[in-house]
Amino acid sequence: MSHVEEMLRTYPADLGDVDRAALARCIAECFDCSQTCTACADACLSEPSAADLVKCVRTCLDCADICDAAGRVLSRHTGYDANLTRAILQACMTACRSCADECGQHAQMHEHCRVCAQTCRRCEQACQELMSTLG
Amino acid sequence: MSHVEEMLRTYPADLGDVDRAALARCIAECFDCSQTCTACADACLSEPSAADLVKCVRTCLDCADICDAAGRVLSRHTGYDANLTRAILQACMTACRSCADECGQHAQMHEHCRVCAQTCRRCEQACQELMSTLG
Amino acid sequence: MSHVEEMLRTYPADLGDVDRAALARCIAECFDCSQTCTACADACLSEPSAADLVKCVRTCLDCADICDAAGRVLSRHTGYDANLTRAILQACMTACRSCADECGQHAQMHEHCRVCAQTCRRCEQACQELMSTLG
Amino acid sequence: MSHVEEMLRTYPADLGDVDRAALARCIAECFDCSQTCTACADACLSEPSAADLVKCVRTCLDCADICDAAGRVLSRHTGYDANLTRAILQACMTACRSCADECGQHAQMHEHCRVCAQTCRRCEQACQELMSTLG
Repeated sequence: MSHVEEMLRTYPADLGDVDRAALARCIAECFDCSQTCTACADACLSEPSAADLVKCVRTCLDCADICDAAGRVLSRHTGYDANLTRAILQACMTACRSCADECGQHAQMHEHCRVCAQTCRRCEQACQELMSTLG
Repeated sequence: MSHVEEMLRTYPADLGDVDRAALARCIAECFDCSQTCTACADACLSEPSAADLVKCVRTCLDCADICDAAGRVLSRHTGYDANLTRAILQACMTACRSCADECGQHAQMHEHCRVCAQTCRRCEQACQELMSTLG
Repeated sequence: MSHVEEMLRTYPADLGDVDRAALARCIAECFDCSQTCTACADACLSEPSAADLVKCVRTCLDCADICDAAGRVLSRHTGYDANLTRAILQACMTACRSCADECGQHAQMHEHCRVCAQTCRRCEQACQELMSTLG
Repeated sequence: MSHVEEMLRTYPADLGDVDRAALARCIAECFDCSQTCTACADACLSEPSAADLVKCVRTCLDCADICDAAGRVLSRHTGYDANLTRAILQACMTACRSCADECGQHAQMHEHCRVCAQTCRRCEQACQELMSTLG
């Protein structure tokens, strides 16, 4: 069992109607995506063609920050507010889509961009799936 | 001139059509709100009635994290993406409104909640004003 | 291969003398610990005895923030600065030790504190091991 | 009165022996420095000579993340732990010194680096002053 699932299992109060598997997956993807985007921004800076990747660096940094906030908000269940969850999921999907599109354009040249684009797509999909279960 | 305004003034490229005053105010409010909400969550924990304030703590922590992400995204201008700016502003306004409503309910009892609710309202308004200039 | 290891593998420049396995483990533990501490702070707020856990909430929030910063700094390799790495590893070990001690005191009562204490100990150890390889 | 001072004034419990003015200044400087470093990293990316500034971008990003964590930890007073405060202040001073040194080297060429170096020096000094009052 992952640490995210263990923390959901040991939460001392009712989690409500939430789909636990979708929630666990989305939290894990948000943290993975935040790390991957942070690392991809830095990898871009180390490329000989760094000057051509400045938009990619920026998009990765934005995505890292928004995924971080989303992962934190989703890790909290006390005093649950569906409006807030939807709003941060929406922002996270937008950031992941932008970053996947941008990194996708460099995927053939830069393997870190290929990995990052895949991670962003997985995170976007996990947010979408959690959103669809929120009713 | 504030540090936010100085950094906008010294940005080496074109900022585009953005309303600089609205942008500067919004960035400053996001960072102020992140600090205030972090402090209000902690102040709630120090109240004798902390057990009655757990929803307020949670809402403050969410708002702090989302304002932090918004302030960082808005501080970047390279490779500007209006969709992403709108998405994080929307999430930030939602978080500030939730937190202002929740803290507002405790404002008569707890002065830190009164200050925090005011800060959240100012931040929500600054986001709204910046949003309205984005076209 | 984990996403952390994939990003290290695809980094386009020399990583220097760093022990890759120790670095990968430490980055992963920092992000896991940040998530677990965020979730444990929230779980404490949902306990009927929340009022007795306010120190635990605070320690978890501090540890989450410091592990987050450490995980981000360690994910960057461009323009490596050993002094900075050591300083944030030191802060992270201190935060993990404090949080493991505090959560450890509630581990028999609250299973989320037991899981969180274990995660903090693992993160502290991963930081210690990385530190010992830095020379 | 600044929002930081207002939140210290309305804190509902004893703040202990801490020097309030030094604490308020240090919190404000940490948040200002986090914003300024985030903006300076982005400004460097927009320079025609971005490729020569990749170490500066990295140092700014590290400093932004560590100042952010420090500002959050210092904004909490419940269950105060002097060891943790000292550890994060130490990391923050190291990050500010590195970033001031790095940005200082580009200060004559790039005004944003000049502003950022000044902000980092102010933050380092505020951390030093707070540290010296902790006994």
